[in-house]
Amino acid sequence: MDNRPIGIFDSGVGGLTVFKEIRELLPAENLIYFGDTARVPYGGKSVQVIQKFASEITHFLEMQNVKMIVVACNTVSAIALHKLKSETSLPIIGVIDPGVRAAIKAAGAGTVGVIGTRATINSGAYQERLNRLRSSIKVVARACPLLVPVVEENLMNSEIARLTLEMYLGDFKKIDIGALILACTHYPLLKNLIKNFLGEKVTLVDSACETAREVKEMLVARRISTEEVKSGKEKFFVTDSPESFAAIAADFLGRPLSGECITHSWQNDF
Amino acid sequence: MDNRPIGIFDSGVGGLTVFKEIRELLPAENLIYFGDTARVPYGGKSVQVIQKFASEITHFLEMQNVKMIVVACNTVSAIALHKLKSETSLPIIGVIDPGVRAAIKAAGAGTVGVIGTRATINSGAYQERLNRLRSSIKVVARACPLLVPVVEENLMNSEIARLTLEMYLGDFKKIDIGALILACTHYPLLKNLIKNFLGEKVTLVDSACETAREVKEMLVARRISTEEVKSGKEKFFVTDSPESFAAIAADFLGRPLSGECITHSWQNDF
Repeated sequence: MDNRPIGIFDSGVGGLTVFKEIRELLPAENLIYFGDTARVPYGGKSVQVIQKFASEITHFLEMQNVKMIVVACNTVSAIALHKLKSETSLPIIGVIDPGVRAAIKAAGAGTVGVIGTRATINSGAYQERLNRLRSSIKVVARACPLLVPVVEENLMNSEIARLTLEMYLGDFKKIDIGALILACTHYPLLKNLIKNFLGEKVTLVDSACETAREVKEMLVARRISTEEVKSGKEKFFVTDSPESFAAIAADFLGRPLSGECITHSWQNDF
Repeated sequence: MDNRPIGIFDSGVGGLTVFKEIRELLPAENLIYFGDTARVPYGGKSVQVIQKFASEITHFLEMQNVKMIVVACNTVSAIALHKLKSETSLPIIGVIDPGVRAAIKAAGAGTVGVIGTRATINSGAYQERLNRLRSSIKVVARACPLLVPVVEENLMNSEIARLTLEMYLGDFKKIDIGALILACTHYPLLKNLIKNFLGEKVTLVDSACETAREVKEMLVARRISTEEVKSGKEKFFVTDSPESFAAIAADFLGRPLSGECITHSWQNDF
């Protein structure tokens, strides 16, 4: 039994889709969320910079005395998870493996599609894991950098969003896609649009739910679940304005933030 | 006479449009460019964070022994220039005043339009300066957050770009706009599209050229021009990968980088 909080982090607000699923599945756990909103987005940045930022956040969460760390960001999971595992003694999981397992189950004999940021797709992390789990699998992966700003501008139901999908995924219609991994935490907000665009036959894999399930399994396996029964506490750290985070967070969570939201400022040393 | 370099900075690559104009007008000056590519973009971030980042870069440029500083970023000029002036003894100019003066000249009796990032427009900096210079002036300002990703995805000639303009500027067609200030260093790359959309009657004000002219005037007035006659040296500092900066920089400059490009890493201190 371990009443310390679970630490969950992302480059910005997107990881709240994972936070939300964890909260629903584990109502008694204390949760800390860290969003690096002053340096968001990570998706177009280099491997070195993403690894550095991820290490800094992991170190910060260790200082907050968390019992495990969830990398609620596809870009960081793809690029830095391996390195983070060597830097912390805490249990740590990302969003890729849960999504990959669910996609292989759902795809059947069909191709698995993967869409994400440029950094996620270029890392080849999804493609490599899919192949490792099933060597015969067919995979198509596509970077879709305009989709995050489309979500952030709340254009999910616009003609601009449809044309953007057409540009990125037009040729996916000609392939027998069995499952499409939404390999960016913003994309679940585009689910309806993508479903309409690709048709009902394609299963959309939202890593957030899968990740939450694996978090629960890990707590049980390691016997580090909380012994509390009342609702867990929530605390949020962001590197830019807590006010604007709180406003957007409500859209992602479907409810207002229920815990305090604190600014953490990286202190730069020349 | 002063042979020290001019320091020019931006949140990323966009300020290279200003760098390019300064280079053309002042071929013998040594130039240092700083792009904060690890933390880009600034346009959706808070006043506090933008001011902090701008102070850090200004301090860094002072350490590089520059003779003057050009804030080649509309967001930083709008939000932090006043604060930076109180923090440095070096001459420092932004891109707003040059753009405002040119727009007033070009607009005649017409309305002045201003388009930029959310941070730039919400600051009210352009609106306030335009009113201060001509109190009777009519101003319409509009934040267009999707335009930067459209440029960065090289979609300047796409239907997505046209629809994005329609969404942001559709109602500008019904107003007698005399001049439109492109209050973001990325927007000059959309000049043709905007011209086609709004029609030939609207003068597009590109602050980059205006700013370069004022830099030259300031050097002359303060007698700090270089005495060299051969081509000035160029040096670039970026906070993310120099390779990807160099690749995009070539698009902005119309030629490859001619000086070395060095990574500056902010050292975070917990």
